[in-house]
Amino acid sequence: MPGPSRDTAVRLDLADPLSALRRRFLLPEGLVYLDGNSLGALPTGVPAAVQTAVAENWGRHLIKVWTDDGWWDLPLKVGDRVGRLLGAAPGQTVVGDSTSVHLFNLLTAAARLRPGRRLILIEEGDFPTNHYMAASVARLLGLEVRPVPMRDMASALRTLGEQVAVVTSGVVDFRTGELWNVASVTRAVHDAGAVVVWDVSHAVGALELALDADGVDFAVGCSYKFLSGGPGAPGFGYAARRHHEDVDQPLCGWHGHAEPFGMVPGYTPVAGVGRLRVGSPNVLSMLSLDAALDVFDDVDMAAVRAKSLALGRFFVESIDTHLAGRGFELVTPRQDDRRASQVTLRHPEAERIMEDLNKRGIIGDVRPPALLRFGFNSLYISYADVFSVVEALRSCA
Amino acid sequence: MPGPSRDTAVRLDLADPLSALRRRFLLPEGLVYLDGNSLGALPTGVPAAVQTAVAENWGRHLIKVWTDDGWWDLPLKVGDRVGRLLGAAPGQTVVGDSTSVHLFNLLTAAARLRPGRRLILIEEGDFPTNHYMAASVARLLGLEVRPVPMRDMASALRTLGEQVAVVTSGVVDFRTGELWNVASVTRAVHDAGAVVVWDVSHAVGALELALDADGVDFAVGCSYKFLSGGPGAPGFGYAARRHHEDVDQPLCGWHGHAEPFGMVPGYTPVAGVGRLRVGSPNVLSMLSLDAALDVFDDVDMAAVRAKSLALGRFFVESIDTHLAGRGFELVTPRQDDRRASQVTLRHPEAERIMEDLNKRGIIGDVRPPALLRFGFNSLYISYADVFSVVEALRSCA
Repeated sequence: MPGPSRDTAVRLDLADPLSALRRRFLLPEGLVYLDGNSLGALPTGVPAAVQTAVAENWGRHLIKVWTDDGWWDLPLKVGDRVGRLLGAAPGQTVVGDSTSVHLFNLLTAAARLRPGRRLILIEEGDFPTNHYMAASVARLLGLEVRPVPMRDMASALRTLGEQVAVVTSGVVDFRTGELWNVASVTRAVHDAGAVVVWDVSHAVGALELALDADGVDFAVGCSYKFLSGGPGAPGFGYAARRHHEDVDQPLCGWHGHAEPFGMVPGYTPVAGVGRLRVGSPNVLSMLSLDAALDVFDDVDMAAVRAKSLALGRFFVESIDTHLAGRGFELVTPRQDDRRASQVTLRHPEAERIMEDLNKRGIIGDVRPPALLRFGFNSLYISYADVFSVVEALRSCA
Repeated sequence: MPGPSRDTAVRLDLADPLSALRRRFLLPEGLVYLDGNSLGALPTGVPAAVQTAVAENWGRHLIKVWTDDGWWDLPLKVGDRVGRLLGAAPGQTVVGDSTSVHLFNLLTAAARLRPGRRLILIEEGDFPTNHYMAASVARLLGLEVRPVPMRDMASALRTLGEQVAVVTSGVVDFRTGELWNVASVTRAVHDAGAVVVWDVSHAVGALELALDADGVDFAVGCSYKFLSGGPGAPGFGYAARRHHEDVDQPLCGWHGHAEPFGMVPGYTPVAGVGRLRVGSPNVLSMLSLDAALDVFDDVDMAAVRAKSLALGRFFVESIDTHLAGRGFELVTPRQDDRRASQVTLRHPEAERIMEDLNKRGIIGDVRPPALLRFGFNSLYISYADVFSVVEALRSCA
């Protein structure tokens, strides 16, 4: 048996129920773009939406954009659209600022829910900023951060028990693409009486999330990866409704105030998730994201997830067949339920290989140590794209 | 003597050396826009710049925008352009995030420069967010905030002496438009051994600033007022070079790391002002600001300041002549050196009057308690505009 081939890819593309979605993106002809896990491609509706925001809204309505055009409430309105993809009922998600800012705020707010407990546990492989922010919050609150590999998290929670205030982790390991079990980890955190803050940056828009159903306390994420909101598109924060009254975040700006135009010197947070707001939101990027979210309106996230798993399986099987003995090591787990929308390979010449791929019109990225990352956005990646990568890897390794 | 009239206004406009600058903005025909101190008007170069960023850079270069298009360094490049208007030598200004975020970071960093001192003094009338952030920083660091009216600041500094860690204030009172003396207040702060954090939001782009020459330690500001960067355009932070090595800010994200792509779990800030960076910057808004700054390239800020003072004087004199006995009280100081680019009137029916003005195509805004604010951006406001406001106020009060 010859294993997966370009013919297989063509057959799979013909049978792909999502193949038409690629037309919702403006991708350069001939490019195979597998870095949508870093910066998503441009959705067709975005240029006009941004142009209208600049020339019509700002240019003609000026200061009235905040009231007459409803821009004051954009962080909540766009937040609800993101929330739908998080498995969050309306009124629990706020868009704006960067992911880092939300993380700093929610780690602090989470720790303040558990006074007297002295530990923040962070998944060992979590994104660098997440480590830096956890350390900074711990320093300000007089706590201690302990990095724990996810495989040891449940036992760490059992051992450390009542000392743990907060557990934080990405839903997906940004290097390996490994997917953690949100429901079971959240349960273990709660069993220890602690609070969880998930970073869903590498999951939202790529797979089904169920933050409400899983009992998650807080989450943060970015909108420029699988949501394709654009470069530097705003981050978002999620707070489960049961915590709203108790959210006490350090960056308390006038947009989160109960009476923002009262202009009083004392801070009283608004009721509801609006208290996650800080200062004036980056509206142009937010409206770019808003237009990008149109892509998801009629899309079944179960189908998106099924396709991205199938793309990943096809990639892994093709590697097994065509790249054996060429120095590649599969870093991402093979099991579907442990794999997000990215497949990572280790190769000692990762940098040089990615440069070669780039010259052939294939874009992925490299992360230390020697990891080649390939993101499979079901909305615009085909099986033929995936096979092109395998062929290119075979030529240059 | 009849006092200032429309004829006077027309004569002043004919003699105005800056009158041609209005053509650098896309203002709706017939609108008198005096709320540029809240949201500046749209510069002509912005729509094309933003469209190129979306369709060309993002759409065609995708992830390569950060490297090949130089977007990674935008916060520093655009920062230097803003810095020129702050009177700051290159390499001391970073653009990105919101003003609130910069303020939280720099208040904390400033307080950390003076361990053992327990007070943050904040100007009593400072913008609400500034009060909220100062309170939050004080709570996290175990300090105390004391609001002080600017007229008492020097004596408070003498009395409280070595207890004061940080003094913070807007350069301009956002309600009254009163301009504080940056040089002399900074000197008083330093005489007490404390550190100053100025908020230049209502000054930058409206008048000459000399942060370096005045020995300022830190400053923050926004770019959507007199800089006309657009709704939600990014804030900025300034740190005097002598402090760079010691800046220790709480929101320490990977963009401020010495080796951002090393992806290591421990935070080491980059040398220089780049350490004020946090997470991914809101690029679309930053490029909008970048295009807006073109307006200032060949403009003499002394001329901008001279005109805005003249516009304010003309407004005040016209009010004296034409609005006497109609319930208006001038809140802004009459003296040029105590007045920024905004004139504020108090009237018991402020809200109703502003609604009437709006119906006549005149835009200003209202702030409690019963204050009508009129901002005079020299780049696009004429003496005739100012006289139109006076006429309209006469009709509706």
